[in-house]
Amino acid sequence: MSKVITARSEDYSQWYNDIVKRANLADHSAVRGCMVIKPYGFAIWENMRDQLDKMFKETGHVNASFPLFIPKSFLSKEAEHVEGFAKECAVVTHHRLMNAPDGSGVIVDPSAKLEEELIVRPTSETIIWNTYRDWIKSYRDLPLLINQWANVVRWEMRTRLFLRTAEFHWQEGHTAHSTSEEAVEETLKILDIYEKFAEEYMAMPVIKGVKSVNERFAGAVDTYTIEALMQDSKALQAGTSHFLGQNFAKAFDVKFLSENNKEEYVWATSWGVSTRLVGGLIMTHSDDQGLVVPPKLAALQAVIVPIPKPDAIINEAADKVIAALKDKGISVKYDTDAKKRPGFKFAEYEMHGVPVRIGIGKRDLEKNQVEIARRDTGEKTSVDLDGAAAYIEKLLVEIQDNLFNKAKKFRDDRISRADDFDTFKEILNGKGGFVSAHWDGTTETELKIKELTKATLRCIPLNNEKEAGKCILTGEPSKERVLFAKAY
Amino acid sequence: MSKVITARSEDYSQWYNDIVKRANLADHSAVRGCMVIKPYGFAIWENMRDQLDKMFKETGHVNASFPLFIPKSFLSKEAEHVEGFAKECAVVTHHRLMNAPDGSGVIVDPSAKLEEELIVRPTSETIIWNTYRDWIKSYRDLPLLINQWANVVRWEMRTRLFLRTAEFHWQEGHTAHSTSEEAVEETLKILDIYEKFAEEYMAMPVIKGVKSVNERFAGAVDTYTIEALMQDSKALQAGTSHFLGQNFAKAFDVKFLSENNKEEYVWATSWGVSTRLVGGLIMTHSDDQGLVVPPKLAALQAVIVPIPKPDAIINEAADKVIAALKDKGISVKYDTDAKKRPGFKFAEYEMHGVPVRIGIGKRDLEKNQVEIARRDTGEKTSVDLDGAAAYIEKLLVEIQDNLFNKAKKFRDDRISRADDFDTFKEILNGKGGFVSAHWDGTTETELKIKELTKATLRCIPLNNEKEAGKCILTGEPSKERVLFAKAY
Repeated sequence: MSKVITARSEDYSQWYNDIVKRANLADHSAVRGCMVIKPYGFAIWENMRDQLDKMFKETGHVNASFPLFIPKSFLSKEAEHVEGFAKECAVVTHHRLMNAPDGSGVIVDPSAKLEEELIVRPTSETIIWNTYRDWIKSYRDLPLLINQWANVVRWEMRTRLFLRTAEFHWQEGHTAHSTSEEAVEETLKILDIYEKFAEEYMAMPVIKGVKSVNERFAGAVDTYTIEALMQDSKALQAGTSHFLGQNFAKAFDVKFLSENNKEEYVWATSWGVSTRLVGGLIMTHSDDQGLVVPPKLAALQAVIVPIPKPDAIINEAADKVIAALKDKGISVKYDTDAKKRPGFKFAEYEMHGVPVRIGIGKRDLEKNQVEIARRDTGEKTSVDLDGAAAYIEKLLVEIQDNLFNKAKKFRDDRISRADDFDTFKEILNGKGGFVSAHWDGTTETELKIKELTKATLRCIPLNNEKEAGKCILTGEPSKERVLFAKAY
Repeated sequence: MSKVITARSEDYSQWYNDIVKRANLADHSAVRGCMVIKPYGFAIWENMRDQLDKMFKETGHVNASFPLFIPKSFLSKEAEHVEGFAKECAVVTHHRLMNAPDGSGVIVDPSAKLEEELIVRPTSETIIWNTYRDWIKSYRDLPLLINQWANVVRWEMRTRLFLRTAEFHWQEGHTAHSTSEEAVEETLKILDIYEKFAEEYMAMPVIKGVKSVNERFAGAVDTYTIEALMQDSKALQAGTSHFLGQNFAKAFDVKFLSENNKEEYVWATSWGVSTRLVGGLIMTHSDDQGLVVPPKLAALQAVIVPIPKPDAIINEAADKVIAALKDKGISVKYDTDAKKRPGFKFAEYEMHGVPVRIGIGKRDLEKNQVEIARRDTGEKTSVDLDGAAAYIEKLLVEIQDNLFNKAKKFRDDRISRADDFDTFKEILNGKGGFVSAHWDGTTETELKIKELTKATLRCIPLNNEKEAGKCILTGEPSKERVLFAKAY
């Protein structure tokens, strides 16, 4: 079975595509750059979404829904914003088709041209802040803590399933505040939620940091990020949280009457994570046998395989285990398909990354035992039938922890320091990962480094120690190290 | 407070708009025909979605995600389908904006014209069946029971919040089967789920039936429907389930190898309900004081108002009630805002349709009592503090039942029989509602009746008694009665 997947060591990119395809996560569609998320892949995204949604609601956020379309003129109101998004957007120009007069088929009806073109939202700051103008009058209307789960479109030229697609699903939070301090606090609170979600649920360690001016969201004052490291030692931006200052309030004239009866512009944040996280999940844990999913996000946490096939005695034991697992809130499937052999099933569930496999066979049952195999290490153990559910409950926690620790060790081993440009290049071309280095703070140097090495400035870590040094490229003075890496 | 809402008797349509606005359910947006669903309205939709999603999953369906865009050529492959949707669709023709050479602003970049135009999906049969061609090879791949929660766009000329909007949210199920019988069975199973959801959760009685040829979904062999009746005695199509035969399989060449090793076209169904249900919910139960929401779908089931304002003693009693309610899984909010008077709060929660209000005041507390008011009837009762939660738990069930029974009586009182055209017209212009009448079965007569009375053929009820009769318009023979009504 494993031969159907390219080994990571052979071709990492092909390995990724093989996993996405063979584990039934997603497909390319007939529409350029748009993907079909298959049921098994979508179930993982649903688990992510439900957990994040819970965390947002617990911190006072509510969901709403804003239009898919943005009038062209709105996009233009914030100068940097339009610059950032105009070059890759889907433009709706007409609202009707018609039969071609020559009978050749269906064509766009030229008489149904829109007065103003509509852009399929690449992000919703503009349409939302245009709406907030009507909703916010006084400090009593603030803060406004709104999120939406939505699809957005960015006409990317080079796409990869989950990681970069023309249409993608995400959540975008858009909050409004009466003070700058409160908005910054919200920006960082969300970054903490993203970190917690990435580490505790995805078992994917991340570094929190702030982006350089060059990497900032178009229209933001500051962009905060969580950065992860994939198994090919390339970084992945996994989520961003933006402090927008008063930029969008000014562009859309959103003012409020303060407690002191003064008219002021509203302060804003926006933040998002997307289906890209599914790509990050795959690349953090999976191996040459297939997908590996942390138990907390698995579409299916355990599977029971009868050996060699179901019968009355095995069914009875399986029913016992199923009942006990369901009692504990653990999802489980009993694969009773008598046409497929156990070995085939083992490989299939391995491919799909089901965290725990329970083999129930006559010989084990004579000793009142079942065989439990864990996906992360491949280890197998015989366990008493009666204690199986309790064992699995603990095992799922252990697997979750093990995946995180393994990923953290991998990541920590790949944070290197470089104090000169040769070392810097050597690391990037060698083991890769994050390189912590001094930088003179200019966009010019940042772009030059990218040109020379393909590494981008991932972030200035929030927990950075202040340390005087010299820029690895220009030798100009620097106050702290920043992280560079080749990235997705 | 109630004066801010137009009375139903005065102007039903304005009453509806007032409720949507005053109860913070939705707003018009800057984009023609597209709405903003506000947090309070969206919470109701989320409750609907979660319940339906549970019912779909319990019957073996899984979620997936298909592209927002449909290539123009796909829409044209099923002849009736394109006829039904081509006249009202958003067409993407370009993928980039640019700065106008004359500096006048941002314009569409003429060099970024798409080779083939993309349609923003009005429904997804075409793109999904194009995908199913790759997924279905053998009878072992069937049935395929897939649903998606998505936004779709139909360029409607006359829109109304929730009831008819250019962009709307819905779920669309698309299933594939190896036999016609199984597909028909699925179509009806979903219709039953829709009926159960409408009646048990929305407390909105519906009639299940099949549509006439004229009212059929574009591309379906049969369209089944659930039809509800609003308080202005107009019908609302609340959900449809389509048996598509092999139409889309043939259009997209989707064949499977049967158990007998024969290549056959796949059988299909599709089915959907949308945010229109929120409009139906509002119009079924609300009154001149504001929104009324059945407890099972309420964003907030109970609210505690301190009288006249919070203090240590009232807080202690409130905490007791909150803990007991939460134990029972009942959502509750304690409104501690000391700046607003109780009367103002009462009116606000009445407007928002919170099913149960708990007033806690010193005088009642001396007798160890609280006052409980129900939104549906306005009745108030004093109840012992310790028994309040148990009382409310029962009351919520009672309110849910009462709303359904009231709506059912209203609806049943408005199903009339007509055996001649004068009586038919008289009923439609009088009390309205459904008129059960004989019809000759032709589209011509159906359209003529619509032209003369504005009534449309809502459905041929599934539980129809066979009864010979004569068409009310043409006098031609008929085998059964059908239901006509003026409708949304």
